[in-house]
Amino acid sequence: MPTIYETDSLDEALNIVQDENKRYPFILHKFDIGSCQEKWTSDYLASKIGSKPVRIHVSQDSMMDFVRKNFTYETLPFNKLIHRCEQTINDEYFLASHERYYFRALGDNQRTDIANIEKHFPSIANDIKYPPLFSSENFFSSVFRISSANTQLWTHYDIMDNILIQVHGTKRLIMFQPSDIDYLYIDGDKSLINNIEEPDFETYPLVRQATYYTGILQPGDCLFIPALWFHNVKSLDTYAISVNVFWRHLNIDFYEPKDLYGNKDVVPFSRTIGQLAKSLNELDKQLPSVYVDFYVRRLRCYLDNYIKEYEKKN
Amino acid sequence: MPTIYETDSLDEALNIVQDENKRYPFILHKFDIGSCQEKWTSDYLASKIGSKPVRIHVSQDSMMDFVRKNFTYETLPFNKLIHRCEQTINDEYFLASHERYYFRALGDNQRTDIANIEKHFPSIANDIKYPPLFSSENFFSSVFRISSANTQLWTHYDIMDNILIQVHGTKRLIMFQPSDIDYLYIDGDKSLINNIEEPDFETYPLVRQATYYTGILQPGDCLFIPALWFHNVKSLDTYAISVNVFWRHLNIDFYEPKDLYGNKDVVPFSRTIGQLAKSLNELDKQLPSVYVDFYVRRLRCYLDNYIKEYEKKN
Repeated sequence: MPTIYETDSLDEALNIVQDENKRYPFILHKFDIGSCQEKWTSDYLASKIGSKPVRIHVSQDSMMDFVRKNFTYETLPFNKLIHRCEQTINDEYFLASHERYYFRALGDNQRTDIANIEKHFPSIANDIKYPPLFSSENFFSSVFRISSANTQLWTHYDIMDNILIQVHGTKRLIMFQPSDIDYLYIDGDKSLINNIEEPDFETYPLVRQATYYTGILQPGDCLFIPALWFHNVKSLDTYAISVNVFWRHLNIDFYEPKDLYGNKDVVPFSRTIGQLAKSLNELDKQLPSVYVDFYVRRLRCYLDNYIKEYEKKN
Repeated sequence: MPTIYETDSLDEALNIVQDENKRYPFILHKFDIGSCQEKWTSDYLASKIGSKPVRIHVSQDSMMDFVRKNFTYETLPFNKLIHRCEQTINDEYFLASHERYYFRALGDNQRTDIANIEKHFPSIANDIKYPPLFSSENFFSSVFRISSANTQLWTHYDIMDNILIQVHGTKRLIMFQPSDIDYLYIDGDKSLINNIEEPDFETYPLVRQATYYTGILQPGDCLFIPALWFHNVKSLDTYAISVNVFWRHLNIDFYEPKDLYGNKDVVPFSRTIGQLAKSLNELDKQLPSVYVDFYVRRLRCYLDNYIKEYEKKN
């Protein structure tokens, strides 16, 4: 199992992000992320942000599963949330006293706003500094994240480059290169394999072929998550606070204008898969099932060949 | 290895062709194919058809390979061709004295005519009778075929139903159901595996998973080849004469109007794969290679899921 690359050098970090032939994940150590690292105690955040209502995921399971939805969405005042996250057992709860919380900041209008810590949490925004890995015109969002200890999020990929700045708590990281999509049993941008540390090989035999890149993110570290790299993040013994900054790697026209999360596939791909879905639907309406089954396999053969030829060329 | 189904009953044959849930290949024995079985000696055919020039495949290899083109196209007067096919060694030849010949009748205008034995070989057309497995308005073509002994044609599928009426000589048959396309290393409608009897498993490991349906076609037998079933046919110890009759299984609108061979994919599929090729080309022009590779794999995952779901439904 390879480990995620680590560096202390901002220059090297910048080079990895910008060199089209590199663009692999790395953990950047020793970058000064600002006063947040000392200031952001639960009491400080509670007092600064106060009772602003925030939308959260609540689950009885330590591994949150987006595909099977083993969590509910709830709302709590921020100052309550942060204290609940701090505890492993709570007297007040939604589902059970050991329930886990996961807060991923949204905008004030959840349907139209893109998360932006400066806009939505101005009282604490100046406490944090981002490593300068992108130019400001490519900035997309800055997402404030808090979760209970020992809480794992689903494996997924994002469509934008992003950096996860760890402020408090330690995280276990597992990442997969984009081409490992073949082994990860994907539904949209998410893997069906929930327990990625100990997968059910009977249900998911191909995952044996995936290459696990692993690492530990400590407070003060920054993780570069290149667009399309799958990642699975789990908080360890203490609750976790981080800020996740997204930016565009490609020209702005490639990105879905209505994407609030930085995870909607690029426009030309969405068009392609939409067209394909429509065509398959037409085939299915018109032809006997033997023809449909055959022709979908024929398309898959065509893609197999395309992938092989493309690998040779590139 | 299952054998190709065999029957003496024309009624059963008709039922297999017409029942959408059957439509598997079979060898029909004991159907009276007419006087051809006795009359069609090489001398008879030579004298009846005379020196009409015909286009032929000539190869030094006993396994003709359409993908790698181990043959040349030549022209011979029919009466010369039939005598050359009859011999295994010829004094007159194009490439070598042991060369093999394969004649697949075309129209008089090779670019526009659909093969029709009544039209292009009227002097012998009345010698043969087709089993009545289709209605005359669905008739597409009747193809006169002659090949040297011990000559194998490439594995391929046709898009129309057809029946191979064996008049002279014996043929070894290998067939695969349409869904085995996954294991046959297809380029268009043809398999890359040339030596299908003893495949190179290192190059073509998946062919181990294909189900070989085998059979022997004797003079007087008729083989039903359903649309999309892969078939590989080899003449055995004597040269082979057959007539191959094609007809439409689906509504006429599904078939490419310019198809002369009955092997062009149905119109809605051709449109789908054409569109997909165009979209991939666009993706490739616009996006960095990591994105292209990733998204083609993503499309393949989509088809994997589609196939699985489709199997469950049907």
